[in-house]
Amino acid sequence: MSQTPLHIVILAAGKGTRMYSKMPKVLHEIGGKPMVERVIDTAALLNPQSICVVIGHGKEQVLAKVKRDVVWVEQTEQLGTGHAVKTALPHLPKEGRTLVLYGDVPLTDAATLQALLDAAGGEVGLLTDVLDNPTGYGRIIREGGKVVAIVEEKDANDAQKAVKETNTGILVLPNAKLEGWLNSLSSNNAQGEYYLTDLIALANSDGIAVHPVQVRASHLAAGVNNKVQLAELERIFQTEQAQELLKAGVTLRDPARFDLRGRLKHGQDVVIDVNVILEGDVEIGDDVEIGANCVIKNAKIASGSKIAPFSSLEDCEVGENNRIGPYARLRPQAKLAADVHIGNFVEVKNASIGEGTKANHLTYIGDATVGSRTNFGAGTITANYDGVNKHQTVIGDEVRIGSNSVLIAPVVIGNRVTTGAGSAITKNCEDGKLVLARARQTVIEGWVRPEKPKK
Amino acid sequence: MSQTPLHIVILAAGKGTRMYSKMPKVLHEIGGKPMVERVIDTAALLNPQSICVVIGHGKEQVLAKVKRDVVWVEQTEQLGTGHAVKTALPHLPKEGRTLVLYGDVPLTDAATLQALLDAAGGEVGLLTDVLDNPTGYGRIIREGGKVVAIVEEKDANDAQKAVKETNTGILVLPNAKLEGWLNSLSSNNAQGEYYLTDLIALANSDGIAVHPVQVRASHLAAGVNNKVQLAELERIFQTEQAQELLKAGVTLRDPARFDLRGRLKHGQDVVIDVNVILEGDVEIGDDVEIGANCVIKNAKIASGSKIAPFSSLEDCEVGENNRIGPYARLRPQAKLAADVHIGNFVEVKNASIGEGTKANHLTYIGDATVGSRTNFGAGTITANYDGVNKHQTVIGDEVRIGSNSVLIAPVVIGNRVTTGAGSAITKNCEDGKLVLARARQTVIEGWVRPEKPKK
Amino acid sequence: MSQTPLHIVILAAGKGTRMYSKMPKVLHEIGGKPMVERVIDTAALLNPQSICVVIGHGKEQVLAKVKRDVVWVEQTEQLGTGHAVKTALPHLPKEGRTLVLYGDVPLTDAATLQALLDAAGGEVGLLTDVLDNPTGYGRIIREGGKVVAIVEEKDANDAQKAVKETNTGILVLPNAKLEGWLNSLSSNNAQGEYYLTDLIALANSDGIAVHPVQVRASHLAAGVNNKVQLAELERIFQTEQAQELLKAGVTLRDPARFDLRGRLKHGQDVVIDVNVILEGDVEIGDDVEIGANCVIKNAKIASGSKIAPFSSLEDCEVGENNRIGPYARLRPQAKLAADVHIGNFVEVKNASIGEGTKANHLTYIGDATVGSRTNFGAGTITANYDGVNKHQTVIGDEVRIGSNSVLIAPVVIGNRVTTGAGSAITKNCEDGKLVLARARQTVIEGWVRPEKPKK
Repeated sequence: MSQTPLHIVILAAGKGTRMYSKMPKVLHEIGGKPMVERVIDTAALLNPQSICVVIGHGKEQVLAKVKRDVVWVEQTEQLGTGHAVKTALPHLPKEGRTLVLYGDVPLTDAATLQALLDAAGGEVGLLTDVLDNPTGYGRIIREGGKVVAIVEEKDANDAQKAVKETNTGILVLPNAKLEGWLNSLSSNNAQGEYYLTDLIALANSDGIAVHPVQVRASHLAAGVNNKVQLAELERIFQTEQAQELLKAGVTLRDPARFDLRGRLKHGQDVVIDVNVILEGDVEIGDDVEIGANCVIKNAKIASGSKIAPFSSLEDCEVGENNRIGPYARLRPQAKLAADVHIGNFVEVKNASIGEGTKANHLTYIGDATVGSRTNFGAGTITANYDGVNKHQTVIGDEVRIGSNSVLIAPVVIGNRVTTGAGSAITKNCEDGKLVLARARQTVIEGWVRPEKPKK
Repeated sequence: MSQTPLHIVILAAGKGTRMYSKMPKVLHEIGGKPMVERVIDTAALLNPQSICVVIGHGKEQVLAKVKRDVVWVEQTEQLGTGHAVKTALPHLPKEGRTLVLYGDVPLTDAATLQALLDAAGGEVGLLTDVLDNPTGYGRIIREGGKVVAIVEEKDANDAQKAVKETNTGILVLPNAKLEGWLNSLSSNNAQGEYYLTDLIALANSDGIAVHPVQVRASHLAAGVNNKVQLAELERIFQTEQAQELLKAGVTLRDPARFDLRGRLKHGQDVVIDVNVILEGDVEIGDDVEIGANCVIKNAKIASGSKIAPFSSLEDCEVGENNRIGPYARLRPQAKLAADVHIGNFVEVKNASIGEGTKANHLTYIGDATVGSRTNFGAGTITANYDGVNKHQTVIGDEVRIGSNSVLIAPVVIGNRVTTGAGSAITKNCEDGKLVLARARQTVIEGWVRPEKPKK
Repeated sequence: MSQTPLHIVILAAGKGTRMYSKMPKVLHEIGGKPMVERVIDTAALLNPQSICVVIGHGKEQVLAKVKRDVVWVEQTEQLGTGHAVKTALPHLPKEGRTLVLYGDVPLTDAATLQALLDAAGGEVGLLTDVLDNPTGYGRIIREGGKVVAIVEEKDANDAQKAVKETNTGILVLPNAKLEGWLNSLSSNNAQGEYYLTDLIALANSDGIAVHPVQVRASHLAAGVNNKVQLAELERIFQTEQAQELLKAGVTLRDPARFDLRGRLKHGQDVVIDVNVILEGDVEIGDDVEIGANCVIKNAKIASGSKIAPFSSLEDCEVGENNRIGPYARLRPQAKLAADVHIGNFVEVKNASIGEGTKANHLTYIGDATVGSRTNFGAGTITANYDGVNKHQTVIGDEVRIGSNSVLIAPVVIGNRVTTGAGSAITKNCEDGKLVLARARQTVIEGWVRPEKPKK
């Protein structure tokens, strides 16, 4: 096995006409990550000396979206895969070897690529796939375990057409030969393009062996040319992630109805009901239950907490043994201590909430600091916005906020304060006081209420 | 190919006992449309001179629900398919030809039927299906490419049982022969019914060739006799629709969790997350994102708008670059201009809302006209109903409605008005004013609040 | 067929290391019921004289969770299946026969077991499964229709390895032989355990025939060792339930997106949209429609009611022709009469609501008794909790509660009362009165509102 330096070139210049999108093809996402970023991240796992990404169509969009430390090379004209690798030549030394990957082949894994590198040694390695129906693909012609030719469909005789092993396009090449071979490529073909595939013949002419490695599943080498294929690979990717979580002990009520678009760190005895979406970085402690249909992004949920169905969490922290939802929305900077209850139709934003505090119904808590064991009556609103600025509401421990109240920030409500239901609290409240701000109840005599006309 | 006039008879008189429903079988829906309506609409694509629908069981329900310009014929007794077509005879001229379809075979497409018509010419055409397991179906016995007989399971010898090509029941017949053949049918069989199938033998006797055409997929000729089959065809129908949208460039995060029960007109770069349902006529502009679990019916959503998860839209219009949801409900006659934000737990009904206006939390806006750049505090309610009549609320531009307010219609709130949080606004407000309607905050001295007994 | 008394031993002592759970394996749930409880319930259908459950790992958890009238036997050391059955010997008489089941094989059905009992007669019966890939399983060696040996993978020759019929472990044994055979078992094997499988050889030695019965589908004998298998069986179980409901006439828009974790009793013309979860005991009348994504637990829904999407019902009763949701939450002890409307972002808890009453928007009704034809304005809150006690709100017939009101319990509101919008109702209201409790609207002159700095 060769330990020569590894360079990786990722071809990502195509437009992807059949995606019917203003966005270049390689930016379309699998598992919440642009395809080309996924390929770069896989490439990085191989510890290469350099990663060179060849971009063209929509290059500004790619550069704006993909924040990775790679060498970006522009291919101003798209003249074929051979031409694309040639644009990267200035960044490739004469030593070592170069692995060619594709920005629209998102699911190749590092193990497959390592096997290819190992098989190639200092010669050529070619990743192949065995297809039930190889029609249309370049066939791998083997002799003695080595690839002696790739024959395209139109040039294949019947025996060659019967071959089911096909070319994936992913290959590793010795840098010493690379420049010479690329310069020997001809565009004398129907499309007038320079094809990497032709390097196989050149290698054979030079007496350099071409070592084939078969992928263990077709999706590892599958490319995306349209949204049908994008959706297919998305589902394969999600299925694989779900299986990994199941094996690690996470209970998924339906693995086919689970989406993870990022990373999940989880404890023991986690149960996730159907149709849940996790995005970004999600961390879940032991004994956490996530109810059906929840959408959770960049959140930490500590042990013992239950998130009831239809809840929406983003950029927030849930303490231990919380009861959240159903229909709860935790927005950025919601930080809940232990034993907090956030109930239905309640929104919390940029607020820290102390241990044992409850807001169970129809409440908005924004820009607030709330103590422990405080209770929000149903229909409480923190009025934090005067149309220009956001103001803080500070609430102490063991406070009882009456139902249908509005707390007009900036305002400080002391410990053990009780506010009357239906109050608009505009001024600070001292510890332990009962505070009201509501009108006296009166009966309007002689009033006749509107009635529907008798039919 | 014959260009003789085409007549279509759709058999839709059956009860559908195994549907266990009070509704006649052909009214059960695929893709949100009654099966028989779907068959009528497909039939119309063939530009026939007439469409005749034979109804019987539940005919009043069919007539009440299916609004299509066809000839409705009643079959008072259900005496078999041959008898059913015979009831339509008075509406069929002696010239041209007649295509027989079924109100419970909902997914036959026009291309398949056109191929059948083309193959039949002026003779008989029979649609067939090749089944892996043909047990129970009538087998197609061919000679020289023509159908010489249909042999039922019970009459078939071993060689005939091995035939996998089966009768679908869909056929086209020359009108010149139709009456004679139908009158020759016998009910001398176990069920005492008149079968269309027997026409094949009659055609052969008369020296009229029977031209078979095989469907390219079984679902194109599949009938629905129970809810298992209804569900199967629903999923096939939804899968086909999803594939068409993917090919056209719509991103569907999971094609298996997408339901379109109507028509979708879409722009470029539309992204639809999992578990979305679209109903009726939905029109979506460029760069629109529909979040997970949304239910959208008869809505227009202009370019650049994002609909967050759990939103529910019906009979409404969303302008450009809106931010809707999560948990937003737009009800009939909600009309939102550009850059509007409607947030969580907010309901909008029969209201036009101007550019840049925001209602982000726990709000009900009904029967209202709202200007531009106005902000609704959390917990705002337009009180539009006095128990008998609905009244209008008119709100100007750049208004700031305080949180937890109620605006009691009819009421007019001028431009640049500010209303205090917690106010009940009963009277019109002049431009630019600060208006309050809330009680002064007081402290109740000496009050002892109830406490839980010490344990 | 033997009619000798039947005893059943269920082996449920394993830890289930690969479940990665603090809970013993047999408590993990399929269809909302612990696996071992499911096996006990199936066993009970066979009318055995006794059911003996052998527990070990996590026995306290099993005893705490599974409330079934069985004989619990503790196996303190896990020394194999033979050893486990031996621990149950003191509870098994010398007459009759004993069926051995497994607490982690949850989907075996009574029909399969009855077929096994019938085939066994007074001899030995062995449940087998034919697998496409039998690698790793004990192969069934038959002679003349009887099982003469079970050969483990490692001991099998090529001919034996080609056998696809495998041992499921489920078997029935004559009690007269049981003790002798169990005492003859040896732990002289790699794992040092006593295996039930070895009883087959002992039966053959004793001239007792072993009658094999093949399961009609592999899931009937499939065991659960990890969460992957748990999820697989969950989906098979859900698919089977969905098919049963479809056959019975329930319309399921997508059988693959339906979960029933309990029992459903249903009327005619029930339509259930995608992604609905039913738990516990759910009873649904005729013509009921359940919208997408609803979660319903222990509820009765009477005929003609429509539950709109995103609704959540638990321990409640919905009367005839109700309109519930979207985004409605009915909590325990919500009891709705006929023609009630509960709309979006409305929560009802421990409240009875009379015929024709409506609460359509952003409302909390808790601990209340409400009459008929009453209307709740949007944003109504019953303030039922003073921080210590829950108090009752009593509301009469034809009451009109103004929008954005709070009703402070305990309070009684008479028939035909109207309350003004924005009121805090603290005192009882007499029949027919208009009651207000809100401040007068005033204009604050000279006020300058904060503005964003010009850019």
